Amino acid sequence: MPQKNVDVLGIGNAIVDVIARQEEAFLGLHGLDKGSMLLVDEDGILSLYDKIGPATEISGGSAANTIAGVTSLGGSACYVGKVAADQLGEVFAHDIRAAGVAFNTPFLKDGPQTARCIVIVTPDGQRTMSTYLGACAMLGPDDVVEEEIAAARITYLEGYLWDRPNAKEAFRKAAQLAGKHKRQTALTLSDSFCVDRYRESFLSLIRDGVDILFANEAEILSLYETSSLQQAMTAVAKDCSLAAITRSERGSVIVAGSSVTEVSAQPVAQVVDTTGAGDLYASGFLFGHAHDKPVAECARLGHVAAAEIISHIGARPQVELKSLV
Amino acid sequence: MPQKNVDVLGIGNAIVDVIARQEEAFLGLHGLDKGSMLLVDEDGILSLYDKIGPATEISGGSAANTIAGVTSLGGSACYVGKVAADQLGEVFAHDIRAAGVAFNTPFLKDGPQTARCIVIVTPDGQRTMSTYLGACAMLGPDDVVEEEIAAARITYLEGYLWDRPNAKEAFRKAAQLAGKHKRQTALTLSDSFCVDRYRESFLSLIRDGVDILFANEAEILSLYETSSLQQAMTAVAKDCSLAAITRSERGSVIVAGSSVTEVSAQPVAQVVDTTGAGDLYASGFLFGHAHDKPVAECARLGHVAAAEIISHIGARPQVELKSLV
Repeated sequence: MPQKNVDVLGIGNAIVDVIARQEEAFLGLHGLDKGSMLLVDEDGILSLYDKIGPATEISGGSAANTIAGVTSLGGSACYVGKVAADQLGEVFAHDIRAAGVAFNTPFLKDGPQTARCIVIVTPDGQRTMSTYLGACAMLGPDDVVEEEIAAARITYLEGYLWDRPNAKEAFRKAAQLAGKHKRQTALTLSDSFCVDRYRESFLSLIRDGVDILFANEAEILSLYETSSLQQAMTAVAKDCSLAAITRSERGSVIVAGSSVTEVSAQPVAQVVDTTGAGDLYASGFLFGHAHDKPVAECARLGHVAAAEIISHIGARPQVELKSLV
Repeated sequence: MPQKNVDVLGIGNAIVDVIARQEEAFLGLHGLDKGSMLLVDEDGILSLYDKIGPATEISGGSAANTIAGVTSLGGSACYVGKVAADQLGEVFAHDIRAAGVAFNTPFLKDGPQTARCIVIVTPDGQRTMSTYLGACAMLGPDDVVEEEIAAARITYLEGYLWDRPNAKEAFRKAAQLAGKHKRQTALTLSDSFCVDRYRESFLSLIRDGVDILFANEAEILSLYETSSLQQAMTAVAKDCSLAAITRSERGSVIVAGSSVTEVSAQPVAQVVDTTGAGDLYASGFLFGHAHDKPVAECARLGHVAAAEIISHIGARPQVELKSLV
């Protein structure tokens, strides 16, 4: 039986990150666009894997990182995502459960392997990702369980899901069920290329009732096809009741109708790896929102969580975030 | 065809480390002896895995870490060890090859999974290990290739191999072949419990012609069943022409017949995870020795490599060690 009340349920691509450091030149050599996420097929991921140096494997996946951050902050959470019945699938399931997250999605048998994302970290701490979706492509509406959605104060969806038809259906079902049970839905736009691929769908979704929208500056500009943040903010205020726009070291801007709140980023001694910065900002924001905090406090919690994650390799917290807030 | 001349060939248990942080109390609760390595069966590793928090997977294995350190210092190296044809086996093979090491041991099919070592890192940076040997147990004499041994200036063997009969035979074959080709052999005692299990065998091996012996203080005391380092040093001087005894933050002592050389450790700003400290000391020492450096310089190289490895999580170098020496 699912828990009666859960702060946040996340649905996303369940991925194990393969993190390797490379010099800047490596990106150009292999046609990688710095800071972005590129989808590759199995041959593509194997070929890139052959070229990178020694790596570290850590559970990842954008919404999964966010959800692990919610429990680390002391919240309760549930995750829906598809891994294969293989060793990396076991690693993913172990890590998210060990973080205190309910994870009940059945493992995929006789299909593609668990998804992997090769994360190239350059000396400036920026990350460039190449993702093989593997088993994630088989996430479907049957994996979305009505009782779980009904139990969650907020259902959080990642834009990346839109890349596969089954997962998109799962996403739609979850959004509908959240509406039916008068629960909130949150969406992250995930990546500016992802926005470019699905601009119209995302705009309809947002206008049809996304309660909280997460985007970074590049994503919100891409969504509204403008180069002016002010214009994008004006546009999003009409489409969505609450939008949190992250601006890296410049903090975040929260747009709620005519009210605009700017919140500073947390100082970080050394940026080691920016992987997960946006994901963990969402952890803090969602945790705060589920506990009825004012938006400035939600954003502050987001910046504290993001500051922890960028101070080390990997996109899962290494200390209990609740000890930091 | 194997390379004509290689600095060091290492033979060991090919293991993927599963690293998790825990408070000190966790060790007592689960009967783990701090700082040691415990062998567990498949049920044992799965049961412990259920209890640890979120983890990071990084290629490990004592001799494999040493060998990866040798190439990171600019040396040439070859590794012999058994992984299964599974995802963790692919991770291990990728990482060691990406480190520039020749690794030609065939993958095990239809047998146990690739070995895993759960490494519990306590807040003081100490590590406590529980190892499931899995596919390693199937390393055998057929995996030791005469041309590879003949090509290596030094063949480096890990004491842990003694834990499995097949691997012990592989070890013996390698030592004999090195002798036949007038190459040097080096042995690390690996762990004081390991010494306790195989004291007589290790003593015969050393007396029969190990050229370089690596041990930490606890291991050398256990080998000679004494509580006096001075007595152990006197004893080892008779049994072996060159012994390097590591003493954590107190540096190392090199015993070569009647000559004793003390070398200081390298200062480290913060000890994050001591996993691999001994392994990387051996990297530096072996690299220096293969390049005919005096023992004090060999030891200094060892301390530089060890200092890098304990300043981060995981037992494989994160920067090119040659840039540090």
